[in-house]
Amino acid sequence: MAQHSLRNKVAIIGAGMIKFGELFDKSFETMIEEAYLNALKSVDKGLDPKEIEAAWLGTLYPPQGNSGVLLSFATGLFGIPVTRVENACATGSDAFRNACFAVALGLYDVALVVGVEKMRDDGGGLIQRTAVKQLWGGRGVTMPAFFGLHATAYMHKYKISREEIALVSVKNHRNGALYPYAHYRFECSVEDVLKAPYISYPLGLYDCCPVTDGAAAVLICRAELASQYTDKPVFVLGSGLATETFFRGGDLTSFPATRYAAQQAYEMAGVSPDDIDVAEIHDCFSITELISYEDLGFAPPGQGIALLKEGIVQLEGSKPINPSGGLLAKGHPIGATGVAQIVELFEQLRGQAGPVQVKNNPQLALQHNIGIGRTATGSVSCVHILGRG
Amino acid sequence: MAQHSLRNKVAIIGAGMIKFGELFDKSFETMIEEAYLNALKSVDKGLDPKEIEAAWLGTLYPPQGNSGVLLSFATGLFGIPVTRVENACATGSDAFRNACFAVALGLYDVALVVGVEKMRDDGGGLIQRTAVKQLWGGRGVTMPAFFGLHATAYMHKYKISREEIALVSVKNHRNGALYPYAHYRFECSVEDVLKAPYISYPLGLYDCCPVTDGAAAVLICRAELASQYTDKPVFVLGSGLATETFFRGGDLTSFPATRYAAQQAYEMAGVSPDDIDVAEIHDCFSITELISYEDLGFAPPGQGIALLKEGIVQLEGSKPINPSGGLLAKGHPIGATGVAQIVELFEQLRGQAGPVQVKNNPQLALQHNIGIGRTATGSVSCVHILGRG
Repeated sequence: MAQHSLRNKVAIIGAGMIKFGELFDKSFETMIEEAYLNALKSVDKGLDPKEIEAAWLGTLYPPQGNSGVLLSFATGLFGIPVTRVENACATGSDAFRNACFAVALGLYDVALVVGVEKMRDDGGGLIQRTAVKQLWGGRGVTMPAFFGLHATAYMHKYKISREEIALVSVKNHRNGALYPYAHYRFECSVEDVLKAPYISYPLGLYDCCPVTDGAAAVLICRAELASQYTDKPVFVLGSGLATETFFRGGDLTSFPATRYAAQQAYEMAGVSPDDIDVAEIHDCFSITELISYEDLGFAPPGQGIALLKEGIVQLEGSKPINPSGGLLAKGHPIGATGVAQIVELFEQLRGQAGPVQVKNNPQLALQHNIGIGRTATGSVSCVHILGRG
Repeated sequence: MAQHSLRNKVAIIGAGMIKFGELFDKSFETMIEEAYLNALKSVDKGLDPKEIEAAWLGTLYPPQGNSGVLLSFATGLFGIPVTRVENACATGSDAFRNACFAVALGLYDVALVVGVEKMRDDGGGLIQRTAVKQLWGGRGVTMPAFFGLHATAYMHKYKISREEIALVSVKNHRNGALYPYAHYRFECSVEDVLKAPYISYPLGLYDCCPVTDGAAAVLICRAELASQYTDKPVFVLGSGLATETFFRGGDLTSFPATRYAAQQAYEMAGVSPDDIDVAEIHDCFSITELISYEDLGFAPPGQGIALLKEGIVQLEGSKPINPSGGLLAKGHPIGATGVAQIVELFEQLRGQAGPVQVKNNPQLALQHNIGIGRTATGSVSCVHILGRG
């Protein structure tokens, strides 16, 4: 394996997003434009759009095939390279990853990464038709049904109750109620979670992320140039990406792709799970967050629930997880999700996260996505580790 | 602009493809697998699949959203990063480009790039529905109609006849008849081209590329490792990518995105258009090849036709273009197209192109794609320059 890495070669200098929600009144391009302008505005010492030398767009189902040029139309950035990346629910973070390669290589001084998804409109229809067709055709399961199987297997193996899993939803909705950009801004109790209609046993309505539109953008530069743009850059320390399938063994209580991606990212960053101060992780369903605690090395197998019960992962805890409300409350506009996680961690590491600012003076942050595909037997995971300058 | 580049950092050590055609009998994964195995077999000193540390997949409309993991299923390469890139008709070459970034950075020693498209089956239906819907909805034109406008504008501005444009189709079908992997393996005369039914005036059946299934794969490594795998590596010297729109000026007789992408690639490689010995360029329609001669700097505006009339771009000429038959004869399975062009140029530069081997002992090769999107008012182009070791 090559010994070179991304570590300390790329700085995030700006980050912005739009309020997630059911955005029927915004086009795909309008969402890109607003997230981009918010990212531009966040650059402390200013950045001229002419300095942006390349762009990456993360989106799962754009309104048309040639989606790179949509970013140009939305931002006015023509004449530069624009690449679309797609990697299921890890789409946004993988777009960020590829942008980091080009900037770390020194090919571009400044690059833009935008993640966007219109789930409730045209694109969402296509996503739903495709997902349902593929999943039903292949395995007879939809996404909630698939994660319901994971939840059942986990509950059985580790003797965990629905009440315990509900603590994920309660925590994330509590954070989301405080987070200005979240789709759902209300708290819910364990009782609310348990009383909600089942979507797919044992997962009820509050165990499932909503169908959400949104966009997010980050501006990155070569690390040595960061001080031109801000005195508070955030550096990319590690990146990992991996695929895996349940056909190759294991049970449904772990996503091995996350383990591989996390190992790559930890090794590149030279840090361990214990070093992480704050994380945005992929809670598409409540059970996914619980399993991911373990796959990311935050807890031994079957013991993730302790992090919730002991308050460690709460906003005030020693390792707050999903201060933004996570996918459960903030929403999960596929292509935007990973980029929005990075936006949030950028603000957390700079102490600018407002009502959801964590209290442990974070130095190191972890971002995590998981994606399911190939008739639910294969998965992908992407992990980034970010650090304060 | 950053001064770093890809130049001489990445070597192509293996390349393979499958015969293009109407491949109803092959699945998306089967096509990937066969192209991958052909690329593996082409590595002169052998390559263990375990040495492949990362992969990129270029595909426009995969059978489902999470397409990265499809490459894993098709090749058995699980546990490594797999990223899907899409960039309209430049999808394959942009996947190659992003893979080159990671390898040039030294993050991976060996990486795989696969391009694939199933146009005549499920995916193709989606492509056609989406393309027709978007184009009709936005501008009232389909792809042949759009390129028909380009042809009309070009013919009017430069006093070029249909007979003259037909020389592109005649040349490429002559090459395709010799190329074992081409979809259409027959010659056609100027008379055949002129007599064929109109698809969209002035473009007839032989002025348009067919609807084709296919896959192609290349294996790349860090340049300094190339000699472990082959004594005849091909090096990546330059890469360019750009977007543009006709809303920003210009007429229909040039695709400025190609001009920008070519300029980036030539500058990176430190070469000029005159230095190019052989090229695979994007002849989705006959007129596109003619315009691209000029956008790539092979001829002044309006004078591209001379390259055909003087035999310069013929297989036996001093600058053969589309020795594989181009998109017109070989076919245009979107995600596979750019990668297949690189496969062909790899073989040309190594003197292994068999019946279509060019006669000018090529040292430098150029690969070019153009893609149309955003209701035909925006375009993207990708250009690579490859050189013999």
